Amino acid sequence: MKETIINILEEVELNQPIFIEALPGIGHVGKLAADHIIEELGAVKMAEIHSPSFPPQVLVDENGIIHAMKNELYYLKSAGEDERDYLLLVGNTQGLSPEGQYEVCGLILDLVEKHGAKEIYTLGGLATGQPVETCAVFGAATNKDLAKKLEDHEVTLRSADGGIIGASGLLLGMGTLRGMEGVCLMGETPGYFIDAEAAKALLTVLMSLLNLEVDTESLEERAIETRKMISKAQQMEQEMVERTAMPPGEEDLRYIG
Amino acid sequence: MKETIINILEEVELNQPIFIEALPGIGHVGKLAADHIIEELGAVKMAEIHSPSFPPQVLVDENGIIHAMKNELYYLKSAGEDERDYLLLVGNTQGLSPEGQYEVCGLILDLVEKHGAKEIYTLGGLATGQPVETCAVFGAATNKDLAKKLEDHEVTLRSADGGIIGASGLLLGMGTLRGMEGVCLMGETPGYFIDAEAAKALLTVLMSLLNLEVDTESLEERAIETRKMISKAQQMEQEMVERTAMPPGEEDLRYIG
Amino acid sequence: MKETIINILEEVELNQPIFIEALPGIGHVGKLAADHIIEELGAVKMAEIHSPSFPPQVLVDENGIIHAMKNELYYLKSAGEDERDYLLLVGNTQGLSPEGQYEVCGLILDLVEKHGAKEIYTLGGLATGQPVETCAVFGAATNKDLAKKLEDHEVTLRSADGGIIGASGLLLGMGTLRGMEGVCLMGETPGYFIDAEAAKALLTVLMSLLNLEVDTESLEERAIETRKMISKAQQMEQEMVERTAMPPGEEDLRYIG
Amino acid sequence: MKETIINILEEVELNQPIFIEALPGIGHVGKLAADHIIEELGAVKMAEIHSPSFPPQVLVDENGIIHAMKNELYYLKSAGEDERDYLLLVGNTQGLSPEGQYEVCGLILDLVEKHGAKEIYTLGGLATGQPVETCAVFGAATNKDLAKKLEDHEVTLRSADGGIIGASGLLLGMGTLRGMEGVCLMGETPGYFIDAEAAKALLTVLMSLLNLEVDTESLEERAIETRKMISKAQQMEQEMVERTAMPPGEEDLRYIG
Repeated sequence: MKETIINILEEVELNQPIFIEALPGIGHVGKLAADHIIEELGAVKMAEIHSPSFPPQVLVDENGIIHAMKNELYYLKSAGEDERDYLLLVGNTQGLSPEGQYEVCGLILDLVEKHGAKEIYTLGGLATGQPVETCAVFGAATNKDLAKKLEDHEVTLRSADGGIIGASGLLLGMGTLRGMEGVCLMGETPGYFIDAEAAKALLTVLMSLLNLEVDTESLEERAIETRKMISKAQQMEQEMVERTAMPPGEEDLRYIG
Repeated sequence: MKETIINILEEVELNQPIFIEALPGIGHVGKLAADHIIEELGAVKMAEIHSPSFPPQVLVDENGIIHAMKNELYYLKSAGEDERDYLLLVGNTQGLSPEGQYEVCGLILDLVEKHGAKEIYTLGGLATGQPVETCAVFGAATNKDLAKKLEDHEVTLRSADGGIIGASGLLLGMGTLRGMEGVCLMGETPGYFIDAEAAKALLTVLMSLLNLEVDTESLEERAIETRKMISKAQQMEQEMVERTAMPPGEEDLRYIG
Repeated sequence: MKETIINILEEVELNQPIFIEALPGIGHVGKLAADHIIEELGAVKMAEIHSPSFPPQVLVDENGIIHAMKNELYYLKSAGEDERDYLLLVGNTQGLSPEGQYEVCGLILDLVEKHGAKEIYTLGGLATGQPVETCAVFGAATNKDLAKKLEDHEVTLRSADGGIIGASGLLLGMGTLRGMEGVCLMGETPGYFIDAEAAKALLTVLMSLLNLEVDTESLEERAIETRKMISKAQQMEQEMVERTAMPPGEEDLRYIG
Repeated sequence: MKETIINILEEVELNQPIFIEALPGIGHVGKLAADHIIEELGAVKMAEIHSPSFPPQVLVDENGIIHAMKNELYYLKSAGEDERDYLLLVGNTQGLSPEGQYEVCGLILDLVEKHGAKEIYTLGGLATGQPVETCAVFGAATNKDLAKKLEDHEVTLRSADGGIIGASGLLLGMGTLRGMEGVCLMGETPGYFIDAEAAKALLTVLMSLLNLEVDTESLEERAIETRKMISKAQQMEQEMVERTAMPPGEEDLRYIG
């Protein structure tokens, strides 16, 4: 296995889908929100991605069952015939090396572009490292119009004190090179625990931005479940991505998605 | 040398072989057990694997003789004509980079699959970091039936507090992508010395799971011999695999195989 | 995206251009000087470079707008018909891995060589780690004639206490393999802030060496602007290049460009 | 530049040459000895090697002159017609990544094998970390006959407490895979300064093993010269090789060559 493999599980026609990314990151904020959308609205898995740049390991769940490292692409058809559909990227890992991240993100963009996606929403958490009273949602955009739109939906534009590291940033950056536009949304979180509150705030903003309606009632339940399912290994893995892509000792680093 | 090389030493027909992996890891528990099977039952070397992702070094034994880094595949024919045969993977190293691990494990799976292997047993040690009174054997499996079978043989299923890092995990994860199933068995060990007791406990469970009979009497002797043969360099190397695949400072990390 | 991509924006004929490199480095000294030349003299962007060895991230500016990681090549036509033209390489990042640096620098040399460039000037900062009273400009050259020329222009040749790490060094080293010659100029700076004084000193020397005239009046203004524009992420990224290419704990390391 | 490049400077016919490697390592013991042979006996440069796995930098000497990173292969014709010739590999760096080391060493073995080399001598230093009274020479060999021969020449065989990391080890290990045999000789040195005494001891053993005669009188002079010429960058670079290939904190690691 020398190259990333994408197994297509279902061929599907989509109507100008909006591409939503939520791979594991700080507080699992994005992942929790996207997993919730997938389950509540019954999104369908259409592809699995495996890559030699993923961590060379497996995860073991609480029942002693082994899971391979993977990314998964789901689609979600909208109710109305003229409404845009959705593509959701989730998974239990990200590429470790810069080269691996570029390869995987490039192949995923190829796939979603082929299905007509032109707009990207990437979801993550923004760790403030201290208790959060009311979860703010931060954002950045690939152009001024989208930035304005974010502000209109109560999203605080991030100032210049940091970049967006990992798939949440790279998909947007590489997307611009092929004419795709998009935003990154980040739920404020103390970080390092599965944060249902931040996921809820993020989801609320996402629903107001998109034509989506999801019941957020059971999010806390899902967070508890996720806490059980997600092993320490995943925590460690996420920290590896950070460490690989970033200087140790940078205490003020606040976002990985 | 830009790619992994597999030198086939003997072409052999095998009867639905069970694939057993025991590359160097914590306490050399898996390696000790597999080396013991190979010598006691007279397994035959059929292939040598060399890879540019192995550490760029050689090992020197106590006689000043230099040994190249390598993995080795042995086969073991069963006595009965209808009984399943065995393939055993041992060696003095593992790939260092994630990409290297994926490449080597993929090529090895190609080879054992070609010989009809569909079931994988990976062996390793689980370092508890404290003295062990009676060696437990921990395990994880790629499906519920195998997990149940492990429990029936006194193997404690591992809870969700960790992944399985290195070849012992990756071979199972990559195996599932091609329809192979299997388990990982881990002998409890304080770690960081050649642990004959843990290897014996592991071997006992393995024998009860498989159709194997090996005299474990001389295991302690082999451990002493191994302690002499195995250089500090190998210890160091194993630690590199850990460090490469894992955040430093994670004191609770407990398994590499 | 498995390889570096160069998007040519404009095909242009140049007269034996001098190639000037100023990718981000210590104190942003080189970058500040080159950005100043580009804006003051109206250089034209002719190519954008994107590479899988760039950091897997994006930068976010103070308006919340996302920018992909990139290198950019500008050209500058000289006023006189017989005078040599210029090629300027700037950007917001460098390759992270050794292999990535070699690939990117090799492709850039291919491109500038195709346009007739045979002489290379690389610009950077030399961090002394203590307050600088009057900014000296240090230098090194690929041959004795150029070294002599540097001394004639008040440049202090660097003794053997260090190498030149990153694109500023590698472009010169790889250039010599294809018959190109050149120098590296380094403005003395305390390091770790956007240093307009060092950029001014550097620019003054560069103007005396080349047939260039640039008003340095507004450099301090540009430094302030740059300080606002350049995110912490870029600082971090630069530190990554250092850390990747160099042993941590080497306190006496003084140059990256 | 995506692959290692070997520039052949002179095509030459050699008589079963003995291949001697002495790339930079601890105390520059091997390099000092090999550079001395090359200059005293007038060896001729026949090839230069450049690789994308070399450090992405250049070295600057005390005159401010820039030098590209490289390995160099010299040949040395023996006086007698029936006597075996020599090939000497020297340079200012080694590959950084495991994959790079394997690629470069493989290509070099291809080249020396093409010229008829079947025997390899790799030279290095063995840092004891404490003052050395009389320099011992340590060694290891790829077979028992060569190990015996080393002992007959007052070389102490190394026990199993360590491997041989870097080109000095890898060339021997990879050599055995193509039927080449050889030894590694290591001069005892406190380490971390240019050690003429250790180089002299090493050279004395090498002369007794091979059909070589070199005046060692001027070795101390060469050491002083080398101390001036060799920049801190090279020290740093060597430490990188160590760090890349080896766990930090392993204080008992004693050999890199």
